[in-house]
Amino acid sequence: MSIERPVLGVTLGDPHGVGPEITVKAVRDPRVRAAARCLVIGDAWVIGEAAARFGESAKVHAGADAPQDDRVVWVRDVGAFAGPVAPGEVSARAGEAAYRYIEAATRLAVAHQTAGVVTNPISKEALNLAGHHYAGHTELLAVLTGAATSVMMLVSGTLRVGHVTTHVALRDVPARITGARVEGVIALVADAVRRLGVAHPRIGVAGLNPHAGEHGLFGDEDDRIVAPAIRAAAASGIAATGPWPGDTVFPRALAGEFDAVVVMYHDQGHIPVKLLSFKLGAAGTVAGVNVTLGLPIVRTSVEHGTAFDIAWKGQASHESLVDAILLAATLSRRAENGAPA
Amino acid sequence: MSIERPVLGVTLGDPHGVGPEITVKAVRDPRVRAAARCLVIGDAWVIGEAAARFGESAKVHAGADAPQDDRVVWVRDVGAFAGPVAPGEVSARAGEAAYRYIEAATRLAVAHQTAGVVTNPISKEALNLAGHHYAGHTELLAVLTGAATSVMMLVSGTLRVGHVTTHVALRDVPARITGARVEGVIALVADAVRRLGVAHPRIGVAGLNPHAGEHGLFGDEDDRIVAPAIRAAAASGIAATGPWPGDTVFPRALAGEFDAVVVMYHDQGHIPVKLLSFKLGAAGTVAGVNVTLGLPIVRTSVEHGTAFDIAWKGQASHESLVDAILLAATLSRRAENGAPA
Repeated sequence: MSIERPVLGVTLGDPHGVGPEITVKAVRDPRVRAAARCLVIGDAWVIGEAAARFGESAKVHAGADAPQDDRVVWVRDVGAFAGPVAPGEVSARAGEAAYRYIEAATRLAVAHQTAGVVTNPISKEALNLAGHHYAGHTELLAVLTGAATSVMMLVSGTLRVGHVTTHVALRDVPARITGARVEGVIALVADAVRRLGVAHPRIGVAGLNPHAGEHGLFGDEDDRIVAPAIRAAAASGIAATGPWPGDTVFPRALAGEFDAVVVMYHDQGHIPVKLLSFKLGAAGTVAGVNVTLGLPIVRTSVEHGTAFDIAWKGQASHESLVDAILLAATLSRRAENGAPA
Repeated sequence: MSIERPVLGVTLGDPHGVGPEITVKAVRDPRVRAAARCLVIGDAWVIGEAAARFGESAKVHAGADAPQDDRVVWVRDVGAFAGPVAPGEVSARAGEAAYRYIEAATRLAVAHQTAGVVTNPISKEALNLAGHHYAGHTELLAVLTGAATSVMMLVSGTLRVGHVTTHVALRDVPARITGARVEGVIALVADAVRRLGVAHPRIGVAGLNPHAGEHGLFGDEDDRIVAPAIRAAAASGIAATGPWPGDTVFPRALAGEFDAVVVMYHDQGHIPVKLLSFKLGAAGTVAGVNVTLGLPIVRTSVEHGTAFDIAWKGQASHESLVDAILLAATLSRRAENGAPA
């Protein structure tokens, strides 16, 4: 496998969503072709249909080796979806196919046949209809790879945000903020940012409470749990500081003060990243990448959902998928070059 | 009082902070002079010193009527601060002066001698040292005006964000989300946005939980409390919708789908506004306005703190204060023109 252009498995996602369209657009994008060789993991006939409609009628190649001409879409035919494609439909058969694409992609990455996995959006509802009960990709990948823990990091340009908690009710968040978890997330984020090329990452940690609690005036968790975890991370050699007020840590990061931010809960990190990466409306683009840290494989994902309302209409932005592939390529190169994985 | 150029009381804030500098810059700014006549409420000698250093040696006028030349700084001399000015120092004497400026400004507005109050930053610590125990401006103004309730709305350009809760520990937020409060905040925000010139405001309401709870998967408050309150507001004729996922409601608002957003807690609203309005680093600017709704007077404020580290150094951005004065002028004109107050 070439270190310069790693092979990345790109799952097709739910065949009824925007995955097929943005995949054929992204894998043929010159930026992607310069950085990676993409192996699309899905049903060859679905990918062929998408290539015909959204990929300038590009050819599809299902061989074991990458095609000579990298404008040809390289495919691993999973044979999981009988069709027909019903754009926008939530269905068990599409959910089952999406599941099997992820399973196949994970197996290839664990076996080092690919350098990592880039995932297209799935419908959690369809996944559940197919009998696979996971909160989402991240939980499924943790099970498939046997990982004990994982961390969601969102990336938009130079803004990188690691999450201590994600898909949990707000009322349950405070109890999930433990010193060990905060310290572990800081360490995984620092490691990932080093692999992204920052030798000595500065990590700004957001407080749980408004104004990071303002010395216990609005909650004591920041003083009692978050601050000691930051000190422990700093003692281990990571340039971690905080807890900082959640509302000013992001402008400070954008101004260059931090290389990454660690947040305590879903919206605290998702709001700033999506505000920067989602340009909605006419001629809009959706960028941004979701990276799963803590797995034994490199895994990135688009930062949006199946977008069933615009599926197979030729209107979907493939910027987020391009970002996800480029980031996976960088992370996998660093891992192969002997940097800490 | 001229309807075209309302008289606005501008408090000086903590004399040891950036208030004096940004005040003399802002009240002499052509944008401000075209929209309002500012009466600076503070100590005349402090304002004179700031004008000498940061206001091109502008004259200070302490008379009852506005000066003919509006480049002259019009002052209401409260006589509360003996000096000397100690830039950046947290002190009881500066906290006491800041308190008395607010008190005087509120009294003038309640008596309709001004059309509203625009406040500069105070130090809560200094306020407390002086024996005035309030969480901040908003709570103090509620007491001074006898208001039963108030709502913090942040404004940055076309993004307007009303808060259901603000300075409360995250763990205490869920219990504060009541149907009556959510409905009341929607109504006050809709009214304010009408006064800002939007005839039929569309209000997008953010959910408390990630993905607005995703049908009860991550917390039930959005289905059980927030959704019925939105329906009640809609039934009363307000174009309110939601609860929407907190991370996508802001890109949608920026794309023109909503005229205002209502959020459930401090960081959910402060993170997006400050990300848009704070440009930190060299040659940075700090814009954005904090509006208090529900008071019997018009009140706006800068969206930043005392910035003690750069006080009296000539480095402070006065954009946020300019924004705050312009917004107060618009709100007060609408109130005088018979729009709902």
